Amino acid sequence: MGNVEPSLVAQALEGDRRALARLISLVEDESHDAYAALAALHPRTGRAHVVGVTGAPGTGKSTLVNELARQLRAGGATVGVVAVDPSSPFTGGALLGDRVRMRDLVGDPGVFVRSMASRGNPGGLAQATGNVVRVLDAAGFDTILVETVGAGQAEVDVAHAAHTTVVVEAPGLGDEVQALKAGLLEIADVLVVNKADRPGAARAAQALEMVINGAASREGSVSRGDLTRMTEANTNGWKPPIVQTIALDGTGVQEVIHAVAAHREHLHGSGLWAGREEARIEKELLDVLRTELLDRLLARVGREQVRDLARRIAERETDLYTAVRTLVGR
Amino acid sequence: MGNVEPSLVAQALEGDRRALARLISLVEDESHDAYAALAALHPRTGRAHVVGVTGAPGTGKSTLVNELARQLRAGGATVGVVAVDPSSPFTGGALLGDRVRMRDLVGDPGVFVRSMASRGNPGGLAQATGNVVRVLDAAGFDTILVETVGAGQAEVDVAHAAHTTVVVEAPGLGDEVQALKAGLLEIADVLVVNKADRPGAARAAQALEMVINGAASREGSVSRGDLTRMTEANTNGWKPPIVQTIALDGTGVQEVIHAVAAHREHLHGSGLWAGREEARIEKELLDVLRTELLDRLLARVGREQVRDLARRIAERETDLYTAVRTLVGR
Repeated sequence: MGNVEPSLVAQALEGDRRALARLISLVEDESHDAYAALAALHPRTGRAHVVGVTGAPGTGKSTLVNELARQLRAGGATVGVVAVDPSSPFTGGALLGDRVRMRDLVGDPGVFVRSMASRGNPGGLAQATGNVVRVLDAAGFDTILVETVGAGQAEVDVAHAAHTTVVVEAPGLGDEVQALKAGLLEIADVLVVNKADRPGAARAAQALEMVINGAASREGSVSRGDLTRMTEANTNGWKPPIVQTIALDGTGVQEVIHAVAAHREHLHGSGLWAGREEARIEKELLDVLRTELLDRLLARVGREQVRDLARRIAERETDLYTAVRTLVGR
Repeated sequence: MGNVEPSLVAQALEGDRRALARLISLVEDESHDAYAALAALHPRTGRAHVVGVTGAPGTGKSTLVNELARQLRAGGATVGVVAVDPSSPFTGGALLGDRVRMRDLVGDPGVFVRSMASRGNPGGLAQATGNVVRVLDAAGFDTILVETVGAGQAEVDVAHAAHTTVVVEAPGLGDEVQALKAGLLEIADVLVVNKADRPGAARAAQALEMVINGAASREGSVSRGDLTRMTEANTNGWKPPIVQTIALDGTGVQEVIHAVAAHREHLHGSGLWAGREEARIEKELLDVLRTELLDRLLARVGREQVRDLARRIAERETDLYTAVRTLVGR
C-alpha cells in the first residue's frame, strides 16, 4: 500500500486526461495501490450526480446515453460516461453505426468515456464500477452516466450505487413491459419509453402508468411481489415520471434531463441523498473487506494449496466445507 | 456447524419432496447448517448433467426450458429445474399464459422445480444456485436445467457452473444476433434459434453460422475480441450446433436434447468434464472462503462498528481504505 505516485492523482485531478485514464485503470484493478489512490481521492468525492441508465438489450439505451451526454454537455455540464453494458458502443461490443454516432463525444475535454470489462474484476463488477465512478467524481465531472444492461444481479447492484436510476423500455420487443419482467421497475426513478415513433409506444407508456398506479394488479398480470416492492420504493413521495423519447434524433431527451434533475432535488429535499450515500458506502465497505480478507488468506496459505484442495474435492476425497475449515480453522 | 438434522438429509435423498424443499431452502441461505448439509451430500454429487439455458428476455427460453423438461421426462429421465431468470414463469415473474403452461410439470415426482430469488443471497447468486444444484444432484436428478436471463455477470457465472450451456436466440428482437451483443456466444455449447416460425429465423441461424465459422470478421460486424474468445472456446474440437425450435409446440426440442447429450459425450470423451468440474470447484471454494472470512470478521468486530464506519466515511471523516485497515489491521 502507498506506492501510488501522488503526482498521478494530482495530475488526474488537474484535468490531465492521460493521468485520469491511468488512474482509472489503477482503481479498476483493485490493487493495493488502488486503495491508496482512492483514499487520497476521497475528500474530493460526493459532489457528482451519479445516474444509472439501464434496460433490456434492444431498447436503445446506448443511443439514449450518448444523447443525454451530448445534451447535458450542451447545457454546460461536464459528463462522465461509464459503460458496463457489454452491448454498448462504448464497450466495443457494438455494430458499426453505433460507433460512428459515438464520435460526437470524442475530443471534448468536458466529456470522459470509460467502458468496463464485464468480467474478470476480482472484487466484482459493481465494486470496480464504483471505484471508477469515484475517480470521475473526484475529477469534478458534474454528472456521471452509468450504462448497464440491467438484467442481472451485478447490474442491479451497479444501479443501486446510482443516485438516480433511469430504466429504458421500447415498444415491440416482444413483451408489453420488459422492465417489469426483468424486475427493473422497482429500481426506476425515471422511466423512458424510447423509440416512441414506433407502433405501440403509447400503449407501452400506458401500461407502465397503470403498473405504477397499481391498477394492473386487478388485471392479474403483475405479481404481488412486484407491486409491494414498487410501493415500498415509492413511499418517499416520488412517483417515477414516464418520458417518451426518440433518442436517435434527440426528441424528448431534454425531458429526461429535467426528470433526472427533479429527482436529484427530491433526494436532497427529503434527506434521501445522505441515506443512499451511507447505504452505498456500507455495501462497498463489505465488498472491499471480502476481497481484502481473501487476498490476505491466499497470501498466507498459498494459491497452490487452494488448487490442490479443489482437485481433492473434485475426486471426492474431501468436501468443500471440510476444505474451508482446513484453510481458515474452525 | 453440525446442527442440521441428519434425518433431513436422509429424508430428502430418499425422495421426500418436502424434506428436499426444506433442504434446498437451507443451503440457499448459506448458513453454517448449510455447510454441514452440503458436506454430508458431497459424496453423492457429481452424477447429474447440469445444463444452463440462457438468452435475452423475449427469446422464449422459459418456454423452451418447460418443453425440455417435459420431453426429457417423457424420455424417462428425472429432471430438476432451477430458474434464476427473474422473468421466468418459474420465478413468479411471468404473465398468466406462462403459468398455465407450467402446470404440465406439476405433480410429477420425477420433476422438481425451484426458483431462485435474484437478489439478497449473501454469497452471491452463483454460489446459492450452485448449492441448490448440488442438492438436486445428490437427490439423484439425471438432468438439471438452470435457466438464467443471461445478460449479467452473475448469470454468466451461473452458466460457467454448468456442464453444457444452451444459448437461446429469437428473430425479430431488434438485433440480428443478440447473443453476440450480450457476449453470450463465447459460452454457448448449443445454440437455439427459437420462434423459428417467425420471419427472420433462417437469417438469424445463418448469421450465427457465419459468426461461428469466423466469416463475419470480414464483414466488419463482429469485434476481434469476440472472435478470439469464441475461437478459444471452440479449440477443443466442439463446434456449437445451431438448432431451430418452436418451443411453444415442441418443434425441434428433441434436436436440442440430442445436441445436449452429444455435448456431454464430448466432455467425457475429451477429458473436459473433469477439468470443468475442478475449475468450478476452485471458484466455488474461493466464493465460500470470501463469505466465511467476512462472517468471521463481522462476528468479531460487530456489525455496529461497520455501520458506524460507513457513516463516518459518508461524512468524509475517514475513507474506505482507512476503515478497512481499522477493521482488519495493516
